[in-house]
Amino acid sequence: MRLLRFLHKVLLPPSQIRCCSSNFVKIVEVGPRDGLQNEKTPVPTDVKLQFIDHLCETGLKTVEATSFVSPKWDPQMADHKEVLSALLNKHSSSSIDFPVLVPNLKGLQAALQVGVKEIAIFGAASEGFSQKNINCSIAQSLLRFEDVMKTASEAGIRVRGYVSCIAACPYDGPTEASQVTSVAQAMSDMGCYEVSLGDTIGAGTPGSMERVLDDVLRVLPAEKLAVHCHDTYGQALANILVSVRRGIRVVDASVAGLGGCPYARGASGNVSTEDVVYMLQGTEYETGVDLSKLIHAGNYISDFLGRPNMSKVALAMTNSKKSG
Amino acid sequence: MRLLRFLHKVLLPPSQIRCCSSNFVKIVEVGPRDGLQNEKTPVPTDVKLQFIDHLCETGLKTVEATSFVSPKWDPQMADHKEVLSALLNKHSSSSIDFPVLVPNLKGLQAALQVGVKEIAIFGAASEGFSQKNINCSIAQSLLRFEDVMKTASEAGIRVRGYVSCIAACPYDGPTEASQVTSVAQAMSDMGCYEVSLGDTIGAGTPGSMERVLDDVLRVLPAEKLAVHCHDTYGQALANILVSVRRGIRVVDASVAGLGGCPYARGASGNVSTEDVVYMLQGTEYETGVDLSKLIHAGNYISDFLGRPNMSKVALAMTNSKKSG
Repeated sequence: MRLLRFLHKVLLPPSQIRCCSSNFVKIVEVGPRDGLQNEKTPVPTDVKLQFIDHLCETGLKTVEATSFVSPKWDPQMADHKEVLSALLNKHSSSSIDFPVLVPNLKGLQAALQVGVKEIAIFGAASEGFSQKNINCSIAQSLLRFEDVMKTASEAGIRVRGYVSCIAACPYDGPTEASQVTSVAQAMSDMGCYEVSLGDTIGAGTPGSMERVLDDVLRVLPAEKLAVHCHDTYGQALANILVSVRRGIRVVDASVAGLGGCPYARGASGNVSTEDVVYMLQGTEYETGVDLSKLIHAGNYISDFLGRPNMSKVALAMTNSKKSG
Repeated sequence: MRLLRFLHKVLLPPSQIRCCSSNFVKIVEVGPRDGLQNEKTPVPTDVKLQFIDHLCETGLKTVEATSFVSPKWDPQMADHKEVLSALLNKHSSSSIDFPVLVPNLKGLQAALQVGVKEIAIFGAASEGFSQKNINCSIAQSLLRFEDVMKTASEAGIRVRGYVSCIAACPYDGPTEASQVTSVAQAMSDMGCYEVSLGDTIGAGTPGSMERVLDDVLRVLPAEKLAVHCHDTYGQALANILVSVRRGIRVVDASVAGLGGCPYARGASGNVSTEDVVYMLQGTEYETGVDLSKLIHAGNYISDFLGRPNMSKVALAMTNSKKSG
């Protein structure tokens, strides 16, 4: 297996190292972006970089680094150029991907100036959420990304697509699976190499997750999909479990359970990467992530923010060490 | 379905009303016992009774009411006679079962004096835990229950068996599945109508849970089994999901996530009944439990204890109402 990993690393460009076996699940760590974006406490650039360095030491292969939105909308991400530039310089020879969120062409152009290699764009599966979150209809939001996709393609940049509210919307209620499928397919048709299905308000259950996945999997193969489950209703791990058992091999998670969504009523809590890794590695999956290093990274940022680590695994293991 | 439920109620004694369809999952609410037993705050008898009354209004069919252990060991449960007696009087015509924990013959005799109809006994699947928790070997603990089983049988009392540490033990590490099977089988052979498999320190994963269940199911049918998952590592709902998908139809849970285990290092957190019910009802299962009434019961006792409700579903739904 180590030889196989070595060969993968040598023979393939980073973007094509996806999985080492059929049970390998790639974790997309979203803590530095999705986790920190709504933090009221300003996080200095050097703390972000130290945090991401800790994450890079865990074996994670993808860390969503920042967001190229306007500082007016998200002051926490105003240092996006500094963050991305520092990461690309420092990790130029590593196989770690650092995608960044971009809302529009302006964001992409700014990211291109510092050498971005992968971006993420976002759409919604519910009209209500699209209107409130990005101020336009679903159809308009997809049209708006046409110039982004064209420029990214010309620059050889990979694009990941997010679809939010796949289970339910805080404004429209439960989401139709067919609506998720049509947005996911549109994003794939536009050129997204992967579509991440987001249960933004965490209201999905294993049952609703399976209904959505079964519908999407009629038109897109599992290899093109990721899941992004919030834990607002405590369902995230169960939802991730049914997803990997349906063949999904990419899971988004946020170390220490950082972050949530400011536009979704009552929506706090990304699923903790530690808890996801613990579950997958304790079941029949590999993630290539060192759990104790991951807990260290989560504790680092939680300590900085002055709040408890929201990962139950991190808490249990840290307590167990203290009393051991 | 309502006719079927009515017929069940009329034609069968309460103890035999188990499930109304193959997708019916019976919840055994353990909050008043497992949840409160280690509370430092003394909970007055009338508060316990009010709490249990709220639970009885939700549609729950089994509420573990108290523990007939010595007040020296568990002062919180010292009012066990008053609690059980009041419940049996008040709910004499209902189909709700109120099992109580008994550690020995003395406990059973005390419970018989107030008309107990169902008891629960407890053993462990790990030697280390058995020694530390009940101060004897596994074999000795089973022998000790012989007189309890005999007296219960003569009095026509149903007995439920708990097996703790089915996934791992805080002293011995991971538990062998075959060890769980042998203790579960012994309890069934002794006359327990149901054996509840407990992941006492919550360290189990869907993978380890499946390995244990597959082993136990070789010798005992799913109808004789229940699962009792703690959420210390955040895995409880995923573990319950794989259990019901393997045919288990009885799940123990504690409203508002009350309780834990004082003998297990770092072990806090029963799984919240609200989160279990939300998951099951959102998937292909029925529980017959009214979620909003359940949240009300959990908020009642959490308010009394002066702490936040630990159920994510209760928090999300309560916040959503407040901001709605």
